Amino acid sequence: MTPLRPDPDTTPLLLAARQLPSPRIPVWFMRQAGRSLPEYRAVRGEGTILDAISDPDRAAEITLQPVRRYGVDAAILFSDIVTPIWAGGFGIDIAAGIGPVCEQPFASASDLDRLRPLDPSTDLAFQTRTVQLLVHELTPKGVPLIGFAGAPFTLASYLIEGRPSREYAKVKALMHADPTLWHRLCDRLADYAIATLGAQVEAGASAIQLFDSWAGALRPEHYQEFVLPHSRRIMEAMAGLGVPRIHFGINTAELLPLMADAGAEVVGVDWRTPLSVARDRTGGRVALQGNLDPALVLAPWSVLEREIVRVLDDNAGHPGHIFNLGHGVLPQSDPEQLARVVELVHRR
Amino acid sequence: MTPLRPDPDTTPLLLAARQLPSPRIPVWFMRQAGRSLPEYRAVRGEGTILDAISDPDRAAEITLQPVRRYGVDAAILFSDIVTPIWAGGFGIDIAAGIGPVCEQPFASASDLDRLRPLDPSTDLAFQTRTVQLLVHELTPKGVPLIGFAGAPFTLASYLIEGRPSREYAKVKALMHADPTLWHRLCDRLADYAIATLGAQVEAGASAIQLFDSWAGALRPEHYQEFVLPHSRRIMEAMAGLGVPRIHFGINTAELLPLMADAGAEVVGVDWRTPLSVARDRTGGRVALQGNLDPALVLAPWSVLEREIVRVLDDNAGHPGHIFNLGHGVLPQSDPEQLARVVELVHRR
Repeated sequence: MTPLRPDPDTTPLLLAARQLPSPRIPVWFMRQAGRSLPEYRAVRGEGTILDAISDPDRAAEITLQPVRRYGVDAAILFSDIVTPIWAGGFGIDIAAGIGPVCEQPFASASDLDRLRPLDPSTDLAFQTRTVQLLVHELTPKGVPLIGFAGAPFTLASYLIEGRPSREYAKVKALMHADPTLWHRLCDRLADYAIATLGAQVEAGASAIQLFDSWAGALRPEHYQEFVLPHSRRIMEAMAGLGVPRIHFGINTAELLPLMADAGAEVVGVDWRTPLSVARDRTGGRVALQGNLDPALVLAPWSVLEREIVRVLDDNAGHPGHIFNLGHGVLPQSDPEQLARVVELVHRR
Repeated sequence: MTPLRPDPDTTPLLLAARQLPSPRIPVWFMRQAGRSLPEYRAVRGEGTILDAISDPDRAAEITLQPVRRYGVDAAILFSDIVTPIWAGGFGIDIAAGIGPVCEQPFASASDLDRLRPLDPSTDLAFQTRTVQLLVHELTPKGVPLIGFAGAPFTLASYLIEGRPSREYAKVKALMHADPTLWHRLCDRLADYAIATLGAQVEAGASAIQLFDSWAGALRPEHYQEFVLPHSRRIMEAMAGLGVPRIHFGINTAELLPLMADAGAEVVGVDWRTPLSVARDRTGGRVALQGNLDPALVLAPWSVLEREIVRVLDDNAGHPGHIFNLGHGVLPQSDPEQLARVVELVHRR
């Protein structure tokens, strides 16, 4: 049975993703669910974050919380980019206060076997159930659900470094020293992304976002050689599913044209690159998502208001704009401030 | 007595900084002294890094080690950007494996008093002595010494966050919530930089580099409002001293034109932005320094060689090029590889 989705011809997020005029500027926030919300802390429970992610009722509730509170134009599945890797049994965890950690990082060809083919019908059954619960709740309200997956470079960075990194020295060393192994690893990780996103869309997600959060650690030539072919394969696999594809990373000033080449309808822009510059650099081929500096949510409202207007003005009324932060909501953000952001963007 | 300096009309670094043809492409490495060298570990001693920095004989020896080993075209004073703040008694330390830490971070106007005016003749006497020892050694060999200081944003990030940061949330919150206090803080930090650099040049440094390593966390409008006036004041204070000024940060793709506006002769470019792009974006007004990805030093020589040639080719023979890494040498780098980099750049 094809799941019911919000109407693509009246839903702001789905219109803006196709660069079509919308009754209002759509807005949502990366990491809108989670630590910044008191209602999240109330239902989060004692277990690990992966326990909460793999419990459909709890994950669905957490996903819905910011939709209720803020009236944002999209829900994004409460999960993590490493969830499929964890579900596949590679040996990865999310450590509180640190992030993804692997006790045995990926180091050689023999580690490829630890990335066995993913079977979403069993490995990601909890995710499918969560998406179904969410679509049942959201579609009557006209709110699209965004599914997501991690892109190969960003996932590989956790697998190879074994934890969050500042330099990506091991990732880059492996990439350059053994390109064949690098591409074999990325092939597997692209398969994971395709399986994950495909299952989300099949269960009713209305859009997908590919997080290549850390690919901006590469210069364009290396991105083109080591990352782009894999991102393009993922985007192409999603092309026939009729949902908009969003492609996001930070520090991507020089990568924006290549990220657009990969095939998404929407490219996410961090706060460093003004939207007008990003529009020029991508030649208007894609809608843009962004790009308020997340730290501004911590500033007084008068400042935050001025900066929201600056982002909107910089976009100069182009219909292909999904308002968002340039990266995830900081945990110390005041939800009242985020509520005001939504209200102001919708008022424009 | 005016200290003797290498001849600006025959010294590669000093020619390239003025965009003049040079007998060879000058090359040096940020963090060329220090943890990557076995001879450094041999003389480093048991104390803290600030002990080594404030001991003129040891600091001079550490500064000279990479010049002897690599034959680089410049020495850079072995010190740290927080040294003057430490010498001024603010209450900052450098913790092994972490970086600069403040037990009592900067939080309000009363903390301004902890940044008393610096008197280089007493507070930085050790630095002056180190520079004098170095100039005595280096000038007969025709090797220029680069002095340096931290720029206000980057120093403020340590003072306000109390340690290295990924998000700069507190810095940005203070900047936006209390611009008056922000500018007062930056005024003091600019005074520190001017005093530090002035003393280095007076003692014989042949060039200076202003490290605004983390300013790339800001979008251009915020850089222009909160950072540029202070960097410009520092650059202007150094303008009459007759030594080239280098201005460096990472993640500065969108800031390069503004960093050139601040007044330096040379702008450092991280590895993300191709030199040809940086040249266009700065309109050829400045020489460029960079920009090999430091992680490539960990790759096999055949790869490293290809990537060095790529950087050189991308520069297309423009005389205003000082070859460097796009950021500091990684501690795990093999000195043999860095020696080969110098050899290849010099051979071109």
